[in-house]
Amino acid sequence: MKKTMIRAGAALIALAAPAGAQKQPATTEVLRDAALKDDVAWDLTEGLTTEVGQRLAGTEAEARARTWAVTRLKALGFANVRIEPFDMPVWIRGAETAEITAPFPQKLAITALGNSGATPPAGLTAEVVGFASLDALIAADPAKVRGKIVFVTHRMGATQDGSSYGPFGNVRRAGPSAAAKLGAAAIVIRSIGTDHHRNPHTGVQSWAAGVTPIPAAALSVPDAEQLERILKRGRPVTMRLVLTPQMTGVHQSGNVIAEVPGRDANAGIVLVGGHLDSWDLGTGAIDDAAGVAITAAAAKRVGDAGRPLRTIRVVWFGAEEVGGFGGIAYAKRHAAEKHVLVGESDFGADRVWRFDTRFANPKAPAAAAVAAALLPLGIARGTNEAHGGTDVEPMAALGVPIADLRQDGTRYFDLHHTPDDTLDKIDPEQLRQNVAAWTALLSVVANTRDEFGPITPAAQQ
Amino acid sequence: MKKTMIRAGAALIALAAPAGAQKQPATTEVLRDAALKDDVAWDLTEGLTTEVGQRLAGTEAEARARTWAVTRLKALGFANVRIEPFDMPVWIRGAETAEITAPFPQKLAITALGNSGATPPAGLTAEVVGFASLDALIAADPAKVRGKIVFVTHRMGATQDGSSYGPFGNVRRAGPSAAAKLGAAAIVIRSIGTDHHRNPHTGVQSWAAGVTPIPAAALSVPDAEQLERILKRGRPVTMRLVLTPQMTGVHQSGNVIAEVPGRDANAGIVLVGGHLDSWDLGTGAIDDAAGVAITAAAAKRVGDAGRPLRTIRVVWFGAEEVGGFGGIAYAKRHAAEKHVLVGESDFGADRVWRFDTRFANPKAPAAAAVAAALLPLGIARGTNEAHGGTDVEPMAALGVPIADLRQDGTRYFDLHHTPDDTLDKIDPEQLRQNVAAWTALLSVVANTRDEFGPITPAAQQ
Repeated sequence: MKKTMIRAGAALIALAAPAGAQKQPATTEVLRDAALKDDVAWDLTEGLTTEVGQRLAGTEAEARARTWAVTRLKALGFANVRIEPFDMPVWIRGAETAEITAPFPQKLAITALGNSGATPPAGLTAEVVGFASLDALIAADPAKVRGKIVFVTHRMGATQDGSSYGPFGNVRRAGPSAAAKLGAAAIVIRSIGTDHHRNPHTGVQSWAAGVTPIPAAALSVPDAEQLERILKRGRPVTMRLVLTPQMTGVHQSGNVIAEVPGRDANAGIVLVGGHLDSWDLGTGAIDDAAGVAITAAAAKRVGDAGRPLRTIRVVWFGAEEVGGFGGIAYAKRHAAEKHVLVGESDFGADRVWRFDTRFANPKAPAAAAVAAALLPLGIARGTNEAHGGTDVEPMAALGVPIADLRQDGTRYFDLHHTPDDTLDKIDPEQLRQNVAAWTALLSVVANTRDEFGPITPAAQQ
Repeated sequence: MKKTMIRAGAALIALAAPAGAQKQPATTEVLRDAALKDDVAWDLTEGLTTEVGQRLAGTEAEARARTWAVTRLKALGFANVRIEPFDMPVWIRGAETAEITAPFPQKLAITALGNSGATPPAGLTAEVVGFASLDALIAADPAKVRGKIVFVTHRMGATQDGSSYGPFGNVRRAGPSAAAKLGAAAIVIRSIGTDHHRNPHTGVQSWAAGVTPIPAAALSVPDAEQLERILKRGRPVTMRLVLTPQMTGVHQSGNVIAEVPGRDANAGIVLVGGHLDSWDLGTGAIDDAAGVAITAAAAKRVGDAGRPLRTIRVVWFGAEEVGGFGGIAYAKRHAAEKHVLVGESDFGADRVWRFDTRFANPKAPAAAAVAAALLPLGIARGTNEAHGGTDVEPMAALGVPIADLRQDGTRYFDLHHTPDDTLDKIDPEQLRQNVAAWTALLSVVANTRDEFGPITPAAQQ
């Protein structure tokens, strides 16, 4: 990457700085504004979603994505491009259909949740018992649930900060184990989503200790509302479910790593990235091709402007969706290296609106410099209670400070984990604003000796 | 219906008219404004889509819909409720999957078009040859098409009046026959739709004389754009298609008819309605549960206000989607009866914005009275070049005048013929505006002796 970087950097500096200043890095502001014309992030997002498509963790599709990533990251000029493999258990989807057989026969749009158990190949037919919330299911009389297909609905609404995903997402995360404990034959939930399309939302759930897996699936929002209407008629409702997913054993996934080496190896590593794997229904454009593309494009821009003080490490994590295996593997392997900051882009491709941190010293001059550089992009300084993303949480748990460039999530859960997560949902202008924001952040943080931590891990506070 | 009508009518009149006027029908304006609080159309739409769901022409589901319709129309108080059966050839969907096998393996969202031929059960794999338009396909060298899977894309955009459906819809109507004539193994088209969801749009197409059917299907818009991007890479693209629809022979469909009998049997019939059948992917909420519900609700309101001069005949046509069989059967059976007007609601459930006619005398006082009553609903007088809908065209071809209350179609082709045509897409307030518009129209036309025709059929002009 070095040659490309120095050439591009020199060109920018020539535009922005007086003669004689050519050896200095371009200013953060110049880099930020140039990034508003970025095409690298779009090209990466378009390429990954078109040339690979879905890339479920641990499958040959994710392996193809790693090969693709290495080729592209090398072509962009990054140094030390490599794959760090790790092993993980792999669940794959099978056939999936649902139909109401009585009183009003009709098909429903459904998809299995991660780690779902399977029905017999010919399916399972049982009466449906409906609950208005996870709490109502947990409080249910087991006699009313045993042998039945549990249906749990909810009323998730869209929020800009995605905060509705926590509580409503528990229907998916905890509902299947709760239903299994009560002896249910299967569970179907209203998708954890905010759209009204016949595209159900998948997502991971893990079985509580000692629970025998049952078939667990999500209806699209219109289908869940349809089932609610049918149940309200008061007549017994029976459903036939066919779900034939399977656990296929332990297979290999991996993290893809690329670097912009810093001038001072002792100044620490700034880690940015996203996750390379996706769910298997769409092509993972907003989740998370955009995130890996945004952070790589920003790192390239800062690197192209001249070798930074600190090493920028771009990590495209594997196997995030199915349990955060990539982040765990990374932290296990790299815990001893000095990381000065971790930050992940994994909430779509819409505009960044807030800059959150988890710093021991949130008033560090470099933090203020980042905030000042972000403000013209419409990004406000937020709280010091950032959580980062699933992939960087294991490093944060070791005390590494977090920067979080929070994206507008208003429409994120319209698309999240559905077949509809495809390239056409990405707005190139908002994508560029993201690149500009990460460019500004990296330009400051990779070129300062300010330290932001270590900080007591959030989980221990 | 009579008792209910007289009672409800008296109540309205009591509100609207001075003492002593109780025997007169309520005014059009009073009926129109009361219809803005209508719940009948919503209840019918909700009931049909929930309790029957999809109702593909000629299937047991459409038969269930007829039974449901007779029960509901009788309960609403209509007279002479009956089914008029007819026979028709029935095509049903089978398995349908598509995947790109090279150079970038991935699944695509696809659905068969009406009357599609079938692949072998294990599928058909062939190279894809892409065309930017139907014209480009028609002009193609047969040597470049023979044995291949033809892909035809286009750039349909949304229009308020739905006028883009004519030219772009030809890709679906004529594309399959054109491909078959050139010796293609199969054809896949970009869905005739204006959305960006992974829900392909089905729709009917008929094979040209002498053409041997081939598999014919539509990709969702995002999938079609994906295939375009892949083809642009310039490498050979192969696709595997599995489509196993079948023609099942001749089965029974039927029109459901209900009436508000007029005081003067010689004054003629005002026919309004929509179609009861739907495509099989969604629950046919906007196409056309809303249409049958709107027109029936309006007829009930006018009937409830007092027996009209002319008979209002509500027809819920069968088998519209697959070839307009219900409209043809109706015209064959009822050609000799005096129809003074036909009108159909079959363009969704969004607001009516224009009142078009095809009258011999568009300046008839009653036409002006309708226009005046519609204006406060935001409905402008339009052209005298109305076409009506598929179901009423056979009657119009006999010279019967047409009234067309044109609905806003801006989002109609986002949903049309997709799994996404479900109840949640209907805005209850816009639905009520439709009921008010048809109520105003019927109130005037069923209570005048004005004649609007006969008029030379449009096709013969």
